[in-house]
Amino acid sequence: METVTFVGLGLNNENSITVEGLEEARNASAVFTELYTSPMTNLDLQKLETTILKPISILTREDLEENSGKKIIDATQHGNVVFLVPGDPMVATTHVSLRLILARKNIETRIIHGQSIISAVVGATGLQNYKFGKSISLPAENVIPQSILIALLDNTFRGLHTLIFLDPATDKIELTINEAIRRLIKAHPEFTKQVAIGAARIGSKDQRVRAGKMGDLVNVNFGPLPHCLVVPGILHFMEVEALETFCGLDRMDVEVRQPLC
Amino acid sequence: METVTFVGLGLNNENSITVEGLEEARNASAVFTELYTSPMTNLDLQKLETTILKPISILTREDLEENSGKKIIDATQHGNVVFLVPGDPMVATTHVSLRLILARKNIETRIIHGQSIISAVVGATGLQNYKFGKSISLPAENVIPQSILIALLDNTFRGLHTLIFLDPATDKIELTINEAIRRLIKAHPEFTKQVAIGAARIGSKDQRVRAGKMGDLVNVNFGPLPHCLVVPGILHFMEVEALETFCGLDRMDVEVRQPLC
Repeated sequence: METVTFVGLGLNNENSITVEGLEEARNASAVFTELYTSPMTNLDLQKLETTILKPISILTREDLEENSGKKIIDATQHGNVVFLVPGDPMVATTHVSLRLILARKNIETRIIHGQSIISAVVGATGLQNYKFGKSISLPAENVIPQSILIALLDNTFRGLHTLIFLDPATDKIELTINEAIRRLIKAHPEFTKQVAIGAARIGSKDQRVRAGKMGDLVNVNFGPLPHCLVVPGILHFMEVEALETFCGLDRMDVEVRQPLC
Repeated sequence: METVTFVGLGLNNENSITVEGLEEARNASAVFTELYTSPMTNLDLQKLETTILKPISILTREDLEENSGKKIIDATQHGNVVFLVPGDPMVATTHVSLRLILARKNIETRIIHGQSIISAVVGATGLQNYKFGKSISLPAENVIPQSILIALLDNTFRGLHTLIFLDPATDKIELTINEAIRRLIKAHPEFTKQVAIGAARIGSKDQRVRAGKMGDLVNVNFGPLPHCLVVPGILHFMEVEALETFCGLDRMDVEVRQPLC
């Protein structure tokens, strides 16, 4: 049995992978990927296949979850395997589960980390990393669970920023920043006046990051996915300046901001 | 005036940079770096210089903070500049400040993100990303501020995990996992029985990640920096299995864990 290396694809396209990750894929006997945990709009898999000189097999959620990664396990009988995952591989819980399945079969695993939205959103917004509280995730289905709303309000009351992941699109629904804001305002109308930051395609050359009151942001065109949303807590003056400078915040929106509740 | 691109060096060595970041450095007219916000023990700058076919100037904290990045600003008069930063560039607040200084001078900036400890620690421990609360930072000086201790206990009481950054070594003190645990136990003796995870050199081939009671972990040899520490909150059974499988946790340590206070 050989090693399975989980390699992060990073955030944007086929050049967002690390040099080490690319080398590992080049030297592997088989290379897999999955593209359902996070959309990578600009990724050109064929270019990547040309660079690593071998085909890349795309695995579905069914391959990985219902069939417990059988295709990857089988491939380890012929040599080292690389599994390419959007972002940083283990941020999606499902891959921790796969790593445990492999360990139970005595298959060694290693991680080559990639860029992740978790740290990139700090840079894209200019907000300070240590002021982020627990992050939350909005489900693609059309209801915001009460527990999610409470977690968000809890961070906000405590002055902490909240990164909101938007679940990848299903066949029926594309959970954009706009749709997420609509649902948040519906669940808690006071959010209309709450400042938020919408961030689309972070890491790409055409990323769009805009700050403003949710009532205004809901009408901004952010373009293609991936999207995420940040609700800031108490802002330091340098954070306000960064939001003005890099995200188009109108300072008046912050100064007139009312405490929630 | 040209563009300044902040490029993340990632976590380990000269191959932890992304392919896009490397290309940008190759095409830049001048390349700078700083190595004081986070130690990169395995980074070979000379190899990187050979790959990008140009010298890399190392900037000090004084260059960047007291002199407001003057060397970088001057270099923009001759072409595009790349500034290589350990990890993901904007996680260190000081670089947000530099980016704002550049913006005030109408110098365009861009970020090419890198691997970051913030997401990598999730993978290295097998803990779940959305269960991390606010992260904290222990200062290298020999006292843990009360506010830091409160933030840690607050996360723990709420069942959330805490990532603890350990300030980079000064001339006098090397803040290792062991030293950090000693100080935590001194400040709050109940921590002796608290499970924690020490993580050294995440992203390198010789990374060492060990979970156990702080009273035991304090004696583990984690080897060279960089080090960080995680104090978990309430653990999901899959998290317990990951800590056992990948971090050597003794399950008994979790089962007998007493609530803090």
